[in-house]
Amino acid sequence: MTLQAIRYQRGSLEILDQLLLPEISKYISINNTDEGWRAIKSMQVRGAPAIAIVGCLSLAIELTNKEFQSTQELKDFVVEKLDYLVSARPTAVNIADAADKGKSMIQKLIDDEKLELDEIKLKLVQEFEAMLQADIDVNKRIGQHGADYILGENNDQPVKVITHCNTGSLATAGYGTALGVIRSLHEQNKLEHVYCTETRPYNQGARLTAYELVHEKMEASLICDNMAAACMSSNKIHAVIVGADRVVANGDTANKIGTYQLAIVAKYHGVPFYVACPRTTFDPHIKSGKDIHIEIRPQDEMTTLKGIRIAAPNIRCWNPAFDVTPAELITGGIITEFGVFKPQELQKQISKILGSG
Amino acid sequence: MTLQAIRYQRGSLEILDQLLLPEISKYISINNTDEGWRAIKSMQVRGAPAIAIVGCLSLAIELTNKEFQSTQELKDFVVEKLDYLVSARPTAVNIADAADKGKSMIQKLIDDEKLELDEIKLKLVQEFEAMLQADIDVNKRIGQHGADYILGENNDQPVKVITHCNTGSLATAGYGTALGVIRSLHEQNKLEHVYCTETRPYNQGARLTAYELVHEKMEASLICDNMAAACMSSNKIHAVIVGADRVVANGDTANKIGTYQLAIVAKYHGVPFYVACPRTTFDPHIKSGKDIHIEIRPQDEMTTLKGIRIAAPNIRCWNPAFDVTPAELITGGIITEFGVFKPQELQKQISKILGSG
Repeated sequence: MTLQAIRYQRGSLEILDQLLLPEISKYISINNTDEGWRAIKSMQVRGAPAIAIVGCLSLAIELTNKEFQSTQELKDFVVEKLDYLVSARPTAVNIADAADKGKSMIQKLIDDEKLELDEIKLKLVQEFEAMLQADIDVNKRIGQHGADYILGENNDQPVKVITHCNTGSLATAGYGTALGVIRSLHEQNKLEHVYCTETRPYNQGARLTAYELVHEKMEASLICDNMAAACMSSNKIHAVIVGADRVVANGDTANKIGTYQLAIVAKYHGVPFYVACPRTTFDPHIKSGKDIHIEIRPQDEMTTLKGIRIAAPNIRCWNPAFDVTPAELITGGIITEFGVFKPQELQKQISKILGSG
Repeated sequence: MTLQAIRYQRGSLEILDQLLLPEISKYISINNTDEGWRAIKSMQVRGAPAIAIVGCLSLAIELTNKEFQSTQELKDFVVEKLDYLVSARPTAVNIADAADKGKSMIQKLIDDEKLELDEIKLKLVQEFEAMLQADIDVNKRIGQHGADYILGENNDQPVKVITHCNTGSLATAGYGTALGVIRSLHEQNKLEHVYCTETRPYNQGARLTAYELVHEKMEASLICDNMAAACMSSNKIHAVIVGADRVVANGDTANKIGTYQLAIVAKYHGVPFYVACPRTTFDPHIKSGKDIHIEIRPQDEMTTLKGIRIAAPNIRCWNPAFDVTPAELITGGIITEFGVFKPQELQKQISKILGSG
């Protein structure tokens, strides 16, 4: 069964404690917004979509279990709790967006004079619940489009792929983006082998992706980041599939450090390179990759591991968190919930789809 | 001052204990072949040339301090000790070679009837001492040729370079090969910056090269293996310089895993790629890189670090120790003690030099 990092049924929310992974797989119960706030703050749940959803679902739990005397009391409660949840990770965009949407939603429901207090509360809970399902649905559509496209390019024969970082159930509401495509290939018995890179310095590949691959019983191997070229020259690799942090107007893509290098190596070996991400990752306001600001992270992420020093004392480090892959290296295409597009055509295609939708 | 991993004066031998690096810099005294054998066996000294030299110098110490009654007694002693030293690392070629040379040398000295017992002993000690100096001399010539060539290509202006793995004083008798070139640039005040890769999974870059760079006070930064492409796109890099485990007839080169990937990335960015190695690394008996056997190393080198698990349980790993860089990617050239040659011309040039020498 697909790994579920967020388990929800009305009145019950559990999350997989990511601080304990990969050694220990333990779900913790979230019974109210206080517990939701703490889980987000302490990074027991991570990944921008996942944070927003866990925050809103913790409020859904609390609303379900609580009685209100008036619509005003309900509204004040919802607004206060949403602001509180945003304060757990003030720079995370998704949860701030979700809070804004939640606030306008409660106002709209109150303004609808046909609705009783209990109906308003129920509809709000249903809206929060829909967020979880919507995110999973988008990922499943990405997975299906990507798998269909890649199999179409390979005579429907089983494929070997390489992926980078973690883009799976542990980074999203469930299923995953790039790992969603790989999951979809696996579900169709069309995945011959997946190689996942360690993803230094934070080791998301070795810790999280490897954990998901073992959980799903996929044919999989971990490689170090510097082994991708050797892997491509000694194996027939059919595709490299990665996620994205931001795709800009011309198709240039910012993603976890190492993505750009992997794209160069794929191009050299003639291996198609795919980026998988939801439409919301596309940012048409930035013209080209040159305008993307790259965050430089603390040096000790590279020199220590679990508190142990792993590099020579006093060596300086350069630790960029992301790099930018130019559109021309995304030779396979960008896989979205609407289909697979050439990076240079993404803007036009999305405008067309949203315009006609 | 240049880092000395082997400190020798007649009657005194000390080595830097590499098991304690990079946290602790401690020299241990080697007073006889028993102590030499143990230092090699326990890997307090590593690297094929360094092992051979420490073994022979431990015998030189013992010979210096011991009196013999006859040339036969001296010869029996030397042969027995050389065989014993080889047994410490039976697969290491250099120490077996050195032992064979030592045995034929003692026989030749005995056959020379003009020599007294004490003269024979002294000459043997001098031969062992010469090995240390010869290896350092070769490295210094590599360093000088490489630095001159690279500066010639760059209008004699300071350069920024990237290196991989450890090829310095800790891997050779002293000075180093690729790191010898970088050391020579630094000595001429022509090194603007050196980036050294971590070199997963054994972290020779983070532990050993970084240690040497800090010791020499070079302008240096550690990068993860997956950051080389980002480093080249956000900095002007003038050269990538690596060592070699074996260069074959057509110029294809086997070296530490990750070298091939670095060469592809350098080619994409138009950065010249150099291999630095002594003539003895050249193996004309193997025609092309396709015929080089690549050792696959144990999985736990990737999944554990200092005894701590760093990857998800039960994930399989692919851990090749080396990869092969095709000659066409060695765009700068191969730097030897005789000069810098295009990889495709190395065989011809070496034949010419050795033929005329």
